[in-house]
Amino acid sequence: MRRKAAVLGATGIVGQRLVSMLSKHPWFELVAIASSERGVNERYNRVVNWIIEDPIPEDAGDMTLQPISPHINADIVFSALPADIAADVEVELAKRGLFVVSNASCMRLDRNIPLLNPEVNAEHIEALELQHKFYGWSGALLKVPNCTTAILTLALKPLFDSFGIDFVAASTMQAISGAGLKGLPAAFIQDNVIPYIEGEEEKVENETKKIFGRLTSKGIVQDDGIKVTASCNRVPVLEGHLITAFVRLKERTTTEEVVRALEEFPTNKIRSFGLPTAPDKPVIVRREVDRPQPRLDKWEGNGMAVVVGRVREDRALGGVKFVVLGHNTLRGAAGTAVLIAELALAKKLL
Amino acid sequence: MRRKAAVLGATGIVGQRLVSMLSKHPWFELVAIASSERGVNERYNRVVNWIIEDPIPEDAGDMTLQPISPHINADIVFSALPADIAADVEVELAKRGLFVVSNASCMRLDRNIPLLNPEVNAEHIEALELQHKFYGWSGALLKVPNCTTAILTLALKPLFDSFGIDFVAASTMQAISGAGLKGLPAAFIQDNVIPYIEGEEEKVENETKKIFGRLTSKGIVQDDGIKVTASCNRVPVLEGHLITAFVRLKERTTTEEVVRALEEFPTNKIRSFGLPTAPDKPVIVRREVDRPQPRLDKWEGNGMAVVVGRVREDRALGGVKFVVLGHNTLRGAAGTAVLIAELALAKKLL
Amino acid sequence: MRRKAAVLGATGIVGQRLVSMLSKHPWFELVAIASSERGVNERYNRVVNWIIEDPIPEDAGDMTLQPISPHINADIVFSALPADIAADVEVELAKRGLFVVSNASCMRLDRNIPLLNPEVNAEHIEALELQHKFYGWSGALLKVPNCTTAILTLALKPLFDSFGIDFVAASTMQAISGAGLKGLPAAFIQDNVIPYIEGEEEKVENETKKIFGRLTSKGIVQDDGIKVTASCNRVPVLEGHLITAFVRLKERTTTEEVVRALEEFPTNKIRSFGLPTAPDKPVIVRREVDRPQPRLDKWEGNGMAVVVGRVREDRALGGVKFVVLGHNTLRGAAGTAVLIAELALAKKLL
Amino acid sequence: MRRKAAVLGATGIVGQRLVSMLSKHPWFELVAIASSERGVNERYNRVVNWIIEDPIPEDAGDMTLQPISPHINADIVFSALPADIAADVEVELAKRGLFVVSNASCMRLDRNIPLLNPEVNAEHIEALELQHKFYGWSGALLKVPNCTTAILTLALKPLFDSFGIDFVAASTMQAISGAGLKGLPAAFIQDNVIPYIEGEEEKVENETKKIFGRLTSKGIVQDDGIKVTASCNRVPVLEGHLITAFVRLKERTTTEEVVRALEEFPTNKIRSFGLPTAPDKPVIVRREVDRPQPRLDKWEGNGMAVVVGRVREDRALGGVKFVVLGHNTLRGAAGTAVLIAELALAKKLL
Repeated sequence: MRRKAAVLGATGIVGQRLVSMLSKHPWFELVAIASSERGVNERYNRVVNWIIEDPIPEDAGDMTLQPISPHINADIVFSALPADIAADVEVELAKRGLFVVSNASCMRLDRNIPLLNPEVNAEHIEALELQHKFYGWSGALLKVPNCTTAILTLALKPLFDSFGIDFVAASTMQAISGAGLKGLPAAFIQDNVIPYIEGEEEKVENETKKIFGRLTSKGIVQDDGIKVTASCNRVPVLEGHLITAFVRLKERTTTEEVVRALEEFPTNKIRSFGLPTAPDKPVIVRREVDRPQPRLDKWEGNGMAVVVGRVREDRALGGVKFVVLGHNTLRGAAGTAVLIAELALAKKLL
Repeated sequence: MRRKAAVLGATGIVGQRLVSMLSKHPWFELVAIASSERGVNERYNRVVNWIIEDPIPEDAGDMTLQPISPHINADIVFSALPADIAADVEVELAKRGLFVVSNASCMRLDRNIPLLNPEVNAEHIEALELQHKFYGWSGALLKVPNCTTAILTLALKPLFDSFGIDFVAASTMQAISGAGLKGLPAAFIQDNVIPYIEGEEEKVENETKKIFGRLTSKGIVQDDGIKVTASCNRVPVLEGHLITAFVRLKERTTTEEVVRALEEFPTNKIRSFGLPTAPDKPVIVRREVDRPQPRLDKWEGNGMAVVVGRVREDRALGGVKFVVLGHNTLRGAAGTAVLIAELALAKKLL
Repeated sequence: MRRKAAVLGATGIVGQRLVSMLSKHPWFELVAIASSERGVNERYNRVVNWIIEDPIPEDAGDMTLQPISPHINADIVFSALPADIAADVEVELAKRGLFVVSNASCMRLDRNIPLLNPEVNAEHIEALELQHKFYGWSGALLKVPNCTTAILTLALKPLFDSFGIDFVAASTMQAISGAGLKGLPAAFIQDNVIPYIEGEEEKVENETKKIFGRLTSKGIVQDDGIKVTASCNRVPVLEGHLITAFVRLKERTTTEEVVRALEEFPTNKIRSFGLPTAPDKPVIVRREVDRPQPRLDKWEGNGMAVVVGRVREDRALGGVKFVVLGHNTLRGAAGTAVLIAELALAKKLL
Repeated sequence: MRRKAAVLGATGIVGQRLVSMLSKHPWFELVAIASSERGVNERYNRVVNWIIEDPIPEDAGDMTLQPISPHINADIVFSALPADIAADVEVELAKRGLFVVSNASCMRLDRNIPLLNPEVNAEHIEALELQHKFYGWSGALLKVPNCTTAILTLALKPLFDSFGIDFVAASTMQAISGAGLKGLPAAFIQDNVIPYIEGEEEKVENETKKIFGRLTSKGIVQDDGIKVTASCNRVPVLEGHLITAFVRLKERTTTEEVVRALEEFPTNKIRSFGLPTAPDKPVIVRREVDRPQPRLDKWEGNGMAVVVGRVREDRALGGVKFVVLGHNTLRGAAGTAVLIAELALAKKLL
């Protein structure tokens, strides 16, 4: 029997991805969609500016768009709300017993709220016990990492496990869709690059430390052994965040060993649960000199794998450098949200 | 009396910039244009795919395009030839007594060939004496740095002078025009980023060390004290290379001091010669959070200044990080070539 | 002595163009800038997202942005307000004695309000007398045509004069900037074309008839002898509207005669007034097979000329077909507004 | 038993589409791939710059790329060769008994060579009998229409059948991929539109007349009752040709009747053969004001349907105007080639 799912913030790009994924999901049944914007009480397909490549699902299209409220009749709520209105609603929903998986950036660093990238830190889901204990919510609240962080940490995970990570400098080339459906005027980005995304660098730096942190009896403690610096840029590309990474490992090794660690990343811990959205290989290594590329490689693993390329020695840093790509609204948002929900269900937490 | 100038490789983008600049130059008179491609012996304006924003100069447009040959009747030759055919022709021209300023990448690391970015290492022009002595050429051969290197080293120069530079990681977002007029098919870069430019990273890493190197009695010795690592990307932008830089200085300082050094960079050494192409301020600092941007800032100093922005502390690295932009076919190629020629003339070496 | 000028809607793209042009204008002095948006009472350069290629003028940048109100201390007001709020303010200003030149689309078809494209229908400015008589305003209100209409009618004018025009089908490829500074989200237009611009086709069809209409004692009567049909599209180009036109003339002629009429268009009627913004040649004909192109040709006549190309026989229609390009925010908006004001001043109507 | 198929010109974009479609085709088995370019005798996946969204098929990737020659061991040959080398090879293959379906533009107007857009003029395949009789080839040669023509004629077919077509003016916005893999330099089309595609307008005008022509005992006679004029433009979009059409019908009707004819187009004549590549609905009508759009609608019918939108009265012309979109390398090239082959097989001509 499928769990009843609701999507908050259903008209945005991440909301559209969630609606699309949940409409054909074997474990969840989409029963409600809500928005904080215009169009409430109208049919979804009359309101939404549907821009993703799959057609709008018929059933979802005919649903009535609800207002945002804590009175939602569902087992699980996927939130793609703007950060400024998300906090209150999400906490209220958790208090009322719902299981909330949220893409909103607020509260991501709270040590009693798991910030999950399942192939990287699935074990942090156990923090829900502390959340229940300390906050007294009958439901639960889990967070999806920032899009760039989700992609970067997945590529770093095999290196973290095999060699330890001392330092990472990441320079990003982020897609337009990451700014939301209407967040970026075309006149600003046409034939241009914008070397700034509000709050993004801090998110990458702090969330990475939390994701690689330890679960203690007091919550998740971030790993300060990893030094992270980021420089984030918006480029005129629709989908797919590309990141150049300069990495110094704790343990000296060869480039070949680094490639091997990436290629042999044993993700089976997640796959063994049979999670429908988990890709066969979450980290794919390309050997060509000029890959990965957003337009060509973003669909690997149905948009849930990250693609690493150009792994090479970095003599100046005493480490390695590489390029990594991920689909920003799937691996970086909606897809990871669904994967988290699947993990919770497989672990009978939902 | 103006010196007679010729342009080799006149139909490409850098060639067009050279033709445009020299056609209205107070010190040079464009007397010959040559190409290794189709169209030889035809009128330039019938052959060239003129794509720069200034109209094609009337006089130049009516010139007959010559074949590439060492028999060119000029005082100075500006070469924008492809590297594979440049070496032989340029050396032959220098042997025959011509003063050659070349954008071709071959021989850039030869210690008796100055690799000049005038505001950074004007003093390396003195290596021409060694060139004459060791190679016996009656003319001279000077090289313009790689486009990214020219932009990056100009931004680094004030920091090098004030604090010393220990380490630089540079991730680039380079414009389409850097691939040449027809070098990059539209179907490859449309809605995409290509994380590879052949040979580019090595050029940035090695040329930077030579530019900051010392002139000795045996030639220019590169500065191995600067560790440089680069990751180079092509983005769908017509003009303007944007670089994110993570920099560790030799001397500890504050971000404010770094900004001050950049803003107060005393470029007057070059300006004091009255070089027509030298910008008033070769390094411009922007304080807005989202600048520099290629489309908006590439024309600063008539395309000859670099624009630095987002200077901020980099705690992870123990240094600073910033973004720098430069016009790749002006500051990064044709403009610096002309500036080198002006410097030589001012120093009576031509 | 220069006339005092104000700009309403100064933060948008057309507003920025107006501020830029008026800041260096020999006949006008920019004394006030106002906006209906956020930022009122702050300094202009703190509020505006300046995206045009010329730097923000220093004096204007330091001005305080005023709210929209009919109490503006100026001789002439240039309005770039949104249509929905423009009507009331503009009429009120005209009542209070100001000379108002407006880019807003409201009231463009009012027969007592001149809709001016100076090289095409300068004589319609005489309708101001009727406006004064019928409406009793002590000031005046004049309208700038829709951007596409301004470009198209200028190209049609020589043909209208020489051969008469029976039918025009125009298919447009309009630039992003035509949608305003923030009017078009990047996620909608990236790698895409949108075959619809609200209200645009009706504007082109109706305004063209009014511009070619006659001034009678009752106002301007539109020319119903010209049948116009338009299909308007938005393309991912920053600036420059490109139009393909299929035209049937009233009088049979040859393609050569059509080209000659375009090339010899005697615009001196306007030039003879010495209007600073009037281009030497408002209609330029290119003979190359692949011109005009927006990126390469939009700056002709400082953005005030239209460029016609590919004039060829249209056997199917029994007429000619051609392509025409104009700078949409200059010839199509701000530039024509300033030209209208210059005409009024030259005619001592202001 | 599947027929053996070869692809000539396999490294280009249309070649890649053919390889992709044939690798998973139920009726054909891809046995040979050939190219006129570099890379002959190497493995296909080492040579090709694979840029389409589906991954390169494993079997095809491992094939050895053959040189172009008439000695190909296959039943059917799909040609995506450049026009200049196609004619000789294709005729030679037909002489040697092979069934050749060609995308090359040469010989498209030959009255004994069917120019097929199956849902439009399937009956023209009967001209193969005349081809055999007059030319004496033991094989056969059939042509795929020009990309724009294929899309336009499919949209016109329901109107042709229901009302007759008197006049069509078509202005196109054609995708980059139509220029071939490397045919269009990025520096030419970035932030630009090019209002010219060599030979394209003549192809649209002439091929349309042939496709709607009659099969007589002397071959296919073009329909001169349809007057067609085209103006063709290249826009910065990867895939999907968008066309604005102004159409005058022979029989007066209402816009509603036109929409109905488009929606009810009885394509079952093709579907009744059970052709795998034939879309359920080859003509799809969208009612939204702003559709079709290339990025959003190109995949309709797996890229084999055309999408018509904005059907509206054209009073100026006395007809209708609309917008139509099709996938240029599928419906406009490779897909139609495969559909033609399927039709031939269903009709036992192969």
